[in-house]
Amino acid sequence: MEPQIPPPRRGPKPKPHIRENLLRIGARMLHESGYTATGIKDIVDAAEVPKGSFYNYFESKEAFGREAVDFYFNQGLTELNALLGNEDIPPLERLRHYFAERTLRFQTQGYVRGCMLGNLSLEVADQIAPIRDQLAEHFQTWGTLMENCIADAQRSGAITNPLPAPVLARFLLNSWEGALLRMKVDKSDAPLTEFHEVVFGALLV
Amino acid sequence: MEPQIPPPRRGPKPKPHIRENLLRIGARMLHESGYTATGIKDIVDAAEVPKGSFYNYFESKEAFGREAVDFYFNQGLTELNALLGNEDIPPLERLRHYFAERTLRFQTQGYVRGCMLGNLSLEVADQIAPIRDQLAEHFQTWGTLMENCIADAQRSGAITNPLPAPVLARFLLNSWEGALLRMKVDKSDAPLTEFHEVVFGALLV
Repeated sequence: MEPQIPPPRRGPKPKPHIRENLLRIGARMLHESGYTATGIKDIVDAAEVPKGSFYNYFESKEAFGREAVDFYFNQGLTELNALLGNEDIPPLERLRHYFAERTLRFQTQGYVRGCMLGNLSLEVADQIAPIRDQLAEHFQTWGTLMENCIADAQRSGAITNPLPAPVLARFLLNSWEGALLRMKVDKSDAPLTEFHEVVFGALLV
Repeated sequence: MEPQIPPPRRGPKPKPHIRENLLRIGARMLHESGYTATGIKDIVDAAEVPKGSFYNYFESKEAFGREAVDFYFNQGLTELNALLGNEDIPPLERLRHYFAERTLRFQTQGYVRGCMLGNLSLEVADQIAPIRDQLAEHFQTWGTLMENCIADAQRSGAITNPLPAPVLARFLLNSWEGALLRMKVDKSDAPLTEFHEVVFGALLV
């Protein structure tokens, strides 16, 4: 058998590690500074690749933004699954532990950045439908993990609040995003510790 | 007595109605499109004044942003006081009515824009301290109005939840901001109606 000869290419071959590097660096910049404030030039400069090569990997800034949202969420998803899906721990404790973990992280970081999904939701959800769709999908996935914990805890009697688990889970996630918003403004952990106090003292009881 | 003669001025005299017009139009643009996406040129073009004259009224875009935040909040404050401070209605009913009113507004508008305070919180709280300070102050004022309702309802026994009224009020406001965030992403009133369901079904009870 003859070796297969690939067809001639135009321009340099896209390299997966450059693509991943652009996403990692760019997602961090979008998270820190926002979508509009982060230019393609900022991203390629930080990644040390020529500006033109950006378009070997991404069709547009919007396409990049959509993939950066996925990159960010998928990065956190492993930890999210490990904490919320850990069946060795009772479901209500998993939720408690998850929010305590996140609170500790923000205390360490000094109450900056918050959640990239939340930040982009308020910045571009009205303007960029493809990014909005990704945000909606990830919020849905995230909320379902919380819903499973709440439903299990309701079945075991650890939570007696009779409201439907999907409603409580969506409220919980949205309220957490609101707590992070206020944390960024007040530069304090009070919104997060008060979230804990109200949720585990009066809501998931 | 001689009439007082004002000292000679350089440049055209600032006109209060132009200043107010820049704030009204600019606040709307910041609310719709965000801080970074709204340029000074966009604002002066929309207000139909020459670009240079912007600086007769505002020292910088940051100074403008700070005042636009005040303008937006003060515009809503009259309605906020009328609804949450109306002593003819029991305090828990005032809160219920307030959130129902706001939900209706967003249903009419098609789930866009959300709350300008929330939007700017996530976009610029880490970058622009003077705007962040104004946001923090207005959230504080807003939350205190809710706190008064909650404390009154606790005194009358309409709310038996024993958590401190300031904690419940801040949680309520932050959760409302989170519900608005999710509304913008999902383009649905579900986050607002579920907020209502959880808050008045399980929290302020």
